[in-house]
Amino acid sequence: MELATIRTAEGTRAAVRSGDQWLPLGAPHLSALLTDAAWRTTAQAALAGTAPHAVAPVAVDDAELVLPLPAPRKVICCGLNYADHILEMGRDLPEHPTLFAKFADTLTGPTDELAVPAAAQGALDWEAELAVVVGAELRNAGEEEARQGIAGYTLANDISVRDWQNRTLQWFQGKAWDATNPLGPVLVTADALDPEAGVEITCEVNGIRRQTGNTKTLVFSAPALVAYISQFTVLRPGDVILTGTPGGVGMGMKPPRYLADGDTVVVEAQGLGRLANTIRFTD
Amino acid sequence: MELATIRTAEGTRAAVRSGDQWLPLGAPHLSALLTDAAWRTTAQAALAGTAPHAVAPVAVDDAELVLPLPAPRKVICCGLNYADHILEMGRDLPEHPTLFAKFADTLTGPTDELAVPAAAQGALDWEAELAVVVGAELRNAGEEEARQGIAGYTLANDISVRDWQNRTLQWFQGKAWDATNPLGPVLVTADALDPEAGVEITCEVNGIRRQTGNTKTLVFSAPALVAYISQFTVLRPGDVILTGTPGGVGMGMKPPRYLADGDTVVVEAQGLGRLANTIRFTD
Repeated sequence: MELATIRTAEGTRAAVRSGDQWLPLGAPHLSALLTDAAWRTTAQAALAGTAPHAVAPVAVDDAELVLPLPAPRKVICCGLNYADHILEMGRDLPEHPTLFAKFADTLTGPTDELAVPAAAQGALDWEAELAVVVGAELRNAGEEEARQGIAGYTLANDISVRDWQNRTLQWFQGKAWDATNPLGPVLVTADALDPEAGVEITCEVNGIRRQTGNTKTLVFSAPALVAYISQFTVLRPGDVILTGTPGGVGMGMKPPRYLADGDTVVVEAQGLGRLANTIRFTD
Repeated sequence: MELATIRTAEGTRAAVRSGDQWLPLGAPHLSALLTDAAWRTTAQAALAGTAPHAVAPVAVDDAELVLPLPAPRKVICCGLNYADHILEMGRDLPEHPTLFAKFADTLTGPTDELAVPAAAQGALDWEAELAVVVGAELRNAGEEEARQGIAGYTLANDISVRDWQNRTLQWFQGKAWDATNPLGPVLVTADALDPEAGVEITCEVNGIRRQTGNTKTLVFSAPALVAYISQFTVLRPGDVILTGTPGGVGMGMKPPRYLADGDTVVVEAQGLGRLANTIRFTD
C-alpha cells in the first residue's frame, strides 16, 4: 500500500493510492492517520470502495504531495550505518548505533525549496537516507515485535550544516535547522517493501550522482534500530527513524564540496519515489 | 511569581502561589498555561482575586506538585557550561555551547521514583541543573529578545546512563531514557530570579553533598543559550532548556560512583525549591 499527504482544496489530506488516483481519507495527514489503530483497515476500505470519501479522488499526475508526516513526536537518526562505506573508510563496524535527535520542525516536504539563512550557508551537505515510520506503540520491543511495529518506509535527506555540526562534539546543532530535512514523498507500507532484501538509494546534486547505497548493507537494520531505541524510549505511531547515509557526502570529497544557492538535490529509490529540493540562500 | 502544576481531585491544574496557598488556574498544567499568550495576566488576576477559580485553593503544605511541564515540544540540553568546572579540568572555555536533545517523555516529576530497567543500572549518574522555560515564540532572537522571552526557571536532574552515553560519539542514547529526568518543582518567573546574578545549585546523594555550582559562572547564560538555539530552531512557550551541570558528577570520582537501587538524589537551589528522587531498579 502507498500512502501520502496530498494538498486538496479543503486542505491537506491523508490519501491512499489506487492505480492512477489518490483516494483522500478523513485524516488531514499521515501523522494523524497513523494515530488511529485502525489505519490499515481505513485505507483498505477506501481501496475496496466500501468507504465513502468526503473529498474527490485526485489524479496521481495532478496531485501535490506535501510533507507526509508533519507531526512526529520523535525523529531519531542513526549515523555511520552503511557497512560498505564504513569499511571503505578503514573503520571497524560499530557495535552500537550512533543516534541523535531532530524535531518535527526540522522536516519539510518532498519538493519544497530549502530556505537557508546566512549562518548555515558555509558548509551545507546532503545525506540520502531510508526513513522508517513507526506504526505501533513500542516499548522495549524485541526485533520481531519491532518488525511488526513498522508502518513502512519513506525517503529522507538529512541535510547537515557541517560547520555547526563540528563546532562541538555533539552533532545536533548541525542537524536540527528548521525545515531543512526533506521527507517523503510517499509512505510505502512494510508489506510492500523490504529494505533488508535490498533497496538502492541514490543522491544526485544538479544531476551528478554523488551517493549510491543499498539498504541490505545496513549494519543496523530497520527492525534492529527500532528495537534498540525502544529500550530507552517509547516509540509511537508516526515517529520517524532515519537509518543513516552511504558514502559520498560533500564533506568527504577532496576538496569538500558543499551546496550552493540554486543547487538541486535529488534523493531517489526504486519503489519509494524521489525527493527533489532546491537550495535557496536567504538573508 | 511562582507557578506549579498541582494534583487536585479534578485532575492536575496549573496553579499560582499566593502566600501559603496554591490558587488553581483553568489550564491542566503549565505546558498548557504557557501556550496562552495571556498567561501572566491570567495568573495575576488569580492573585488579585479578580478571577473566579473553579477549583478550591490548596494549602502549600498539603499540595502535591507534579511534573510542571509535561508537554514541551523541545527539551534541549547544554553540556560543559560551568566555567569553574571547565577550568579546574584544565580545559579551555568553549566558543560554542555543546547541545543535545531529549524528549518530553524523558521528564518526570520532582518527587517521582525513578524506575530504572536492568539495561540502565550499570552507570547511572546525577547532574544538577538550572532549567530555562521559554515563554514566547522565538526565531533568530537577539540576546535581549531572548531575555524577554524567558518565562522563568526551574530545576532539573539530567540523570545520565554513562555506559550508553559513551557507547558512541553521540550522548543522546545515554540521556533520553523515559521518565528519568526530574523537573520542577516550581516555575519561578524571570522577574523574580536572576541566574546571572548568581543562584547556587547543589546536588546531594543520600545526604552527601556531591555538586555545588553557581549559575553566575555559566559560560553561556540563559539568554545566550536561548538566542543561540533560536538561530537554528524556533522555540515556543513551554519549551525547556537545561543549562549544564557543575563539577562533582559520579563519573568524575575516583573510582567512579554510580547510583544504586534505593539511593535518593536531591537537587536544590535557593528560591527554586528541591527535587528529591529515589532510584528504584526494576526487572
